[in-house]
Amino acid sequence: MSLIVTGTIGIDTVHTPDGTERKDVLGGSCTYFAAAASFYTGVRMVAAVGDDLPDEHRKTLAAFPRIDTAGLETRAGSKTFRWGGKYMDDMDHRETLFTELGVLEEAPPPVPEAFKDSEYVFLANSHPAVQMGMLEALPSRKLVVADTMDLWINIAKDELIALLAKVDGLVLNFDEAELFTGIKNTVAAGRKLLEYGPRFVVVKKGEHGAILIHQDGIAALPAYPTERVVDPTGAGDSFAGGMMGHIAREGETGHQADPGAFRTIRQALAHGTVIASFNIESFSLDRLKKLQTNEIDDRYEEYVRMVRVD
Amino acid sequence: MSLIVTGTIGIDTVHTPDGTERKDVLGGSCTYFAAAASFYTGVRMVAAVGDDLPDEHRKTLAAFPRIDTAGLETRAGSKTFRWGGKYMDDMDHRETLFTELGVLEEAPPPVPEAFKDSEYVFLANSHPAVQMGMLEALPSRKLVVADTMDLWINIAKDELIALLAKVDGLVLNFDEAELFTGIKNTVAAGRKLLEYGPRFVVVKKGEHGAILIHQDGIAALPAYPTERVVDPTGAGDSFAGGMMGHIAREGETGHQADPGAFRTIRQALAHGTVIASFNIESFSLDRLKKLQTNEIDDRYEEYVRMVRVD
Repeated sequence: MSLIVTGTIGIDTVHTPDGTERKDVLGGSCTYFAAAASFYTGVRMVAAVGDDLPDEHRKTLAAFPRIDTAGLETRAGSKTFRWGGKYMDDMDHRETLFTELGVLEEAPPPVPEAFKDSEYVFLANSHPAVQMGMLEALPSRKLVVADTMDLWINIAKDELIALLAKVDGLVLNFDEAELFTGIKNTVAAGRKLLEYGPRFVVVKKGEHGAILIHQDGIAALPAYPTERVVDPTGAGDSFAGGMMGHIAREGETGHQADPGAFRTIRQALAHGTVIASFNIESFSLDRLKKLQTNEIDDRYEEYVRMVRVD
Repeated sequence: MSLIVTGTIGIDTVHTPDGTERKDVLGGSCTYFAAAASFYTGVRMVAAVGDDLPDEHRKTLAAFPRIDTAGLETRAGSKTFRWGGKYMDDMDHRETLFTELGVLEEAPPPVPEAFKDSEYVFLANSHPAVQMGMLEALPSRKLVVADTMDLWINIAKDELIALLAKVDGLVLNFDEAELFTGIKNTVAAGRKLLEYGPRFVVVKKGEHGAILIHQDGIAALPAYPTERVVDPTGAGDSFAGGMMGHIAREGETGHQADPGAFRTIRQALAHGTVIASFNIESFSLDRLKKLQTNEIDDRYEEYVRMVRVD
């Protein structure tokens, strides 16, 4: 049990194009990542919340037995991060209605002593200096992947470049890859990013899938062509959770001598794609809460068939 | 030799984001389709031009020995179709600067007697009533695929619906599938289109690939992740050319008892993807003119590896 994720727990309010509003549901990068990864391996969570986090949201997290919440710090008098957003008609674009940073404006949560032997590390999107601090608190790390966003590329690029020299993988959206590198072509931008240190870059394109630019090859994966998109919130984080869950599982069972090898990462992206396709079928963790491993296996096989040419 | 294409020969002026302008180059749906398909099989062309078509453009067509131009009608006193366009920064959107219909406003060209035994038919984008006339002029047709566009969905939907009842396959862009059906989800829209008659629908998503919705299954294919996009003009038509070229080749050699079977169409989309990826590496037919079959074979194998998960 040595996969760890550092990120946010959030209280989300989500509006979807059909007029539905879901108020104060459980969200956050850490939440979606951990729920998704827990189908593959145990996952340790490091995050901070305020004392306003509803009990029902704690119960939801507890419903995933392979999530270890020993690193979930509750701060008296602080407020949990809140986000409100509205999806446009095409479900691939959204407008942020409000952001209340709460605990995210305070010091980051500490990594518990018992988590310091973690080997597989996912640094969900946050300030690259915070991500660097987390990374340095994990001396047993074997494979580290970071997520980032346009905000940090714009205001903390030097810190982000320093972080890239320390990670094995980077996950970002295609427009962020373009923003970072000034290169409008996904593959060329991904190759440029490899020069900063990571051995692989995963460029996410939302409903259009993802491209893996690995030092040993390139893979292009379409999204699972689903007909049931209810709420895309958490698609990227659950994708990362499935991806890292598979990588950690392969590493732990010794399936792969090198858990960062091209073939393992490529398969990991397919697992991420499949678990994300379930996540978006409902709000919050509603779908993942009910998900069975045989459903994952069936859809994974279906997906592999869908993308095979010959 | 029984693949036939009906469509346009055009004289294009293309502006690309780097400031390059290429004036009066050879273009048109029939041109790109036929050049691409000719790498797979012989292809018969039915199109009309005016007497203003430069000799060099005729020479370019003649440089593809497997294109049969016996159905290329030159009309004295008429003007060849002209189109001017400008690509936006992302290369996936373009603005039409001018359109001069010329011969497209006149009666469609006749199908030569010698072409009437054609079995594989591609009806490039034009008014669905014109497409229907072409289809009816080909009594030996075994497999017919039509392309269409938003204009006909808006102004000639009844004729388009009548055409769909007569074709085996439909090719269109994802926003056109949405416009036709009123359904914002690609797979759901594709399934709805199958109800009008075709046994498969190919939904194109430009740089994001294509989705095949076939009565026997679904396939999702990313575009070839190229770093060299010079001019996207003709990407869709060269894609269709590679696709139909493969279908016709498989049918002709008896590889497939049913040339419209899911597996054949899925492979055909991969061939279309590969040939389109070459086409966009240069203006007009500049790249296809120099293309060698071993280059196609190599890139096809590379593409199959890129999209394979396991």
